[in-house]
Amino acid sequence: MDTIINEPKRVFRDDHLGGEGVDKSIRKLKDLRGIFKDERAFENMDPETLVYEVISYLPVKEGTQGGVYFGVTSIFPGSVGGEYFMTKGHFHAMIDRTEFYWGIKGEGVLILMDEQRRVWAEKMFPGSFHYIPGRVAHRVANTGKELLSFAASWPSDAGHNYEEIARNGFAKRLIDINGVASLI
Amino acid sequence: MDTIINEPKRVFRDDHLGGEGVDKSIRKLKDLRGIFKDERAFENMDPETLVYEVISYLPVKEGTQGGVYFGVTSIFPGSVGGEYFMTKGHFHAMIDRTEFYWGIKGEGVLILMDEQRRVWAEKMFPGSFHYIPGRVAHRVANTGKELLSFAASWPSDAGHNYEEIARNGFAKRLIDINGVASLI
Repeated sequence: MDTIINEPKRVFRDDHLGGEGVDKSIRKLKDLRGIFKDERAFENMDPETLVYEVISYLPVKEGTQGGVYFGVTSIFPGSVGGEYFMTKGHFHAMIDRTEFYWGIKGEGVLILMDEQRRVWAEKMFPGSFHYIPGRVAHRVANTGKELLSFAASWPSDAGHNYEEIARNGFAKRLIDINGVASLI
Repeated sequence: MDTIINEPKRVFRDDHLGGEGVDKSIRKLKDLRGIFKDERAFENMDPETLVYEVISYLPVKEGTQGGVYFGVTSIFPGSVGGEYFMTKGHFHAMIDRTEFYWGIKGEGVLILMDEQRRVWAEKMFPGSFHYIPGRVAHRVANTGKELLSFAASWPSDAGHNYEEIARNGFAKRLIDINGVASLI
């Protein structure tokens, strides 16, 4: 008897990841209190504003050594006092863990910072491919007028250390200055 | 002074992965001796026939714990005595390591086999997404008339155990029977 050739249980097409076991989480402006510089502008905005969402497939338990995770993050266009909508940003909890990001849709900037708080950045666009070495914090900002989507793959034991960035931020911010994304 | 926002060092668009540090390896028919059932058909074919190529970005040393690797495999259309062109297939050397595959171009089948030699399979096509659990050997066959391309991400300490498959093969083969891909 022939063995049946099954349909795949999941799909990943353009910026859509879906199917069995796929999770979605959202971040509204109210979840991002403190990450933008202009607190007054922040307080004048609707706290329910959707800033980004993450669709992920995490098939093994968080912390498992030797597994890989996969996700698609979509950041809406917008800014808070000229500072582009962006992800919270994090080091990995296991700080030497690495990660790949690759741009799918829209335009943005990947902001990177090492433990000495040196900051550098790479443009993101459909087809851009990014390697995030270990010991490097990473955050993405949407600098365009459309949705910015990118995919990621990272080790299942990497974890997230959001606290360091929540406390001390990145050493530079990505600000719209006369229509130009400037890292200052 | 503004920090420069750099161009990304690498691109990943459609089935193209390129840029700094990206490697390419090829597998010709002569590199795949013994994996196809029909040895007479194999001997009658040009050993220089290109069967597949792998473009990969391996930014950390093989065996590094907690890193991730990324690659794009493209399998040419063809068959040996009705058995579709396919990858060698392997378990991971660290056998519990997992992997993601996702289809980019063309049509094929992902063939999976556990340590008890139970075989199952999933269709691959643009947008198909596949999770390969630990302890599962994996091989891809191109069942279409065009190039089959898929991307992969896996842990940098997974390694490859090709020997087990070279010795004992998969328990089932994917054969063209009257134009239908059949796993028998």
